[in-house]
Amino acid sequence: MNSNSVILICGGAGFIGSNLVNRFLSLGSNIVIADNYSRGSSLNIAKYLANPAVHFFEVDLSKRQNVKNLFQYAAALGDICEVWHLAANSDIPLGVENPDVDHKDTFLTTFELLIEMKKYGIKLFNFASSSAIYGDFGDLRISENSGPLLPISNYGAMKLASEAQLSAAAEDFLVRVNIFRFPNVVGVPATHGVIFDFINKLLLDPSTLPVLGDGTQQKAYLHVEDLISAMLTIHDRDIEGKVEVVNIGPIDDGVSVKFIAEKVVERINSKAKIIYGTSNKGWVGDVPKFKYSVDKLLSYGWSPKLNSEEAIIKAIDEIALQFEI
Amino acid sequence: MNSNSVILICGGAGFIGSNLVNRFLSLGSNIVIADNYSRGSSLNIAKYLANPAVHFFEVDLSKRQNVKNLFQYAAALGDICEVWHLAANSDIPLGVENPDVDHKDTFLTTFELLIEMKKYGIKLFNFASSSAIYGDFGDLRISENSGPLLPISNYGAMKLASEAQLSAAAEDFLVRVNIFRFPNVVGVPATHGVIFDFINKLLLDPSTLPVLGDGTQQKAYLHVEDLISAMLTIHDRDIEGKVEVVNIGPIDDGVSVKFIAEKVVERINSKAKIIYGTSNKGWVGDVPKFKYSVDKLLSYGWSPKLNSEEAIIKAIDEIALQFEI
Repeated sequence: MNSNSVILICGGAGFIGSNLVNRFLSLGSNIVIADNYSRGSSLNIAKYLANPAVHFFEVDLSKRQNVKNLFQYAAALGDICEVWHLAANSDIPLGVENPDVDHKDTFLTTFELLIEMKKYGIKLFNFASSSAIYGDFGDLRISENSGPLLPISNYGAMKLASEAQLSAAAEDFLVRVNIFRFPNVVGVPATHGVIFDFINKLLLDPSTLPVLGDGTQQKAYLHVEDLISAMLTIHDRDIEGKVEVVNIGPIDDGVSVKFIAEKVVERINSKAKIIYGTSNKGWVGDVPKFKYSVDKLLSYGWSPKLNSEEAIIKAIDEIALQFEI
Repeated sequence: MNSNSVILICGGAGFIGSNLVNRFLSLGSNIVIADNYSRGSSLNIAKYLANPAVHFFEVDLSKRQNVKNLFQYAAALGDICEVWHLAANSDIPLGVENPDVDHKDTFLTTFELLIEMKKYGIKLFNFASSSAIYGDFGDLRISENSGPLLPISNYGAMKLASEAQLSAAAEDFLVRVNIFRFPNVVGVPATHGVIFDFINKLLLDPSTLPVLGDGTQQKAYLHVEDLISAMLTIHDRDIEGKVEVVNIGPIDDGVSVKFIAEKVVERINSKAKIIYGTSNKGWVGDVPKFKYSVDKLLSYGWSPKLNSEEAIIKAIDEIALQFEI
């Protein structure tokens, strides 16, 4: 990569996107951050925009003309060599209530990016997919080859739809598609997620922490720094075919919501009372239990620095500091 | 079912849809055929519309207001007890050239049907999916559990997207989703497909049959009568969960395009010269080789009356008669 190349980071003002921008600063390429600030924020990227190689374009990526404008803008800066797509709806319950949300923000964003990429002959697509595409496998450990894929949220459905559209595009014009199936990711700058929500609730009412579900939901959590290093490991490898699908996650089977609630209370206000719900699901579309195989990724030589417990504890502290607590 | 119930058959004027209408005539339910006549034809259903229980509503199922109108029309006839969705784009190369085609006709039709079904509390969805959702597994035999799902056409991608959206809807409000993963299906009234195309070509130029691809593509073919009986077998079974995914196909591994070309020439004009292409794919998005496991369906007690060879030979004759040859 060089000063004439452009890396397009969609959703680059969001939680994971802004961490990726940070990591790419040293590459010497131009970086174009595309975001509509729906979840992302100018605060997350203000410090990067001081760098003359970093550019920002505000855009709703689900709209064809807007995406066209984005590519015109980015192409004027140099050759667009690859696209990273991390923009999506991140409010899963909202997407279940109104399917248009995930169709538009989680699927059409991918769909419209592909339309423009084909025109420009851009051949490398990096996609933030999700463990949500698998649905509920209960006690079975989920590998990249597991099926059938029966997502239980519209978010998971539209991430799977995006994967499918990318796979078809690889047959048509892309030469490499990296599909990163994310676990739950924690760290800063937090914009949503369980820790963020718990701290927000305690700021509103320091005496009580109401928890959706009975607290038994068990999930794996990866710290965003480990996620970024995993994505770059996958990105930098040669592969045989055109489409690389990889589960990313910690090696352990995760922690319970109860563990997270207790650690948040410990950090923010140890006198707060935790009140649990009665369902083993936090909401419609929540997968209560989840065992993830990351053997493929481990075979690439990557390993996480933090396990789920350590990632949660570190992130609680980081997010508390973000709230200036 | 009774005279107050309504079965909605989307794509009911098409090849498979009209065969389904025929099979449902004896049930005593009202049947509403929804079709936009893009591939379907009034000729396919004229004889059924003479029956007072059969109704037709012309509609583009990808448009929200139109689907709303359809459900108002159908609900006025009785309780809509289930939806069969067989409408889709069926021109795979066209969908690869213009992704909007499959997004609209293959995916949004499913998406918009679900929006209205939720409003009306209709809980049973029968979906015509496709082996195209699997992509190219080469020599591996494909079962319902095979993965990863990497379709190589936008048609396959948008069928998979539909499956995913249905799966999420089952978590939300549907109580039963039958996902039929179709093989290549042959029979009449033919509207598209390899036999239909070959006969059409020979009508234009009786001396030559140009074939896309080198003729080695090997696929399994099921006769539409066997397909209908398979769907009804699956439909009538009780299952444990809410989503039933089943491969439908013959037991054999299919026949080559060369076999079909030779049999068509034999039937239509034995002096015609067959001219093959050079690629082992007929077009971008064509899966050259395909081994399908139908063990799950066989375990339900179904078995096909015809194998691939017999289905092709019978369908060639039926389609030739349809062309009045």
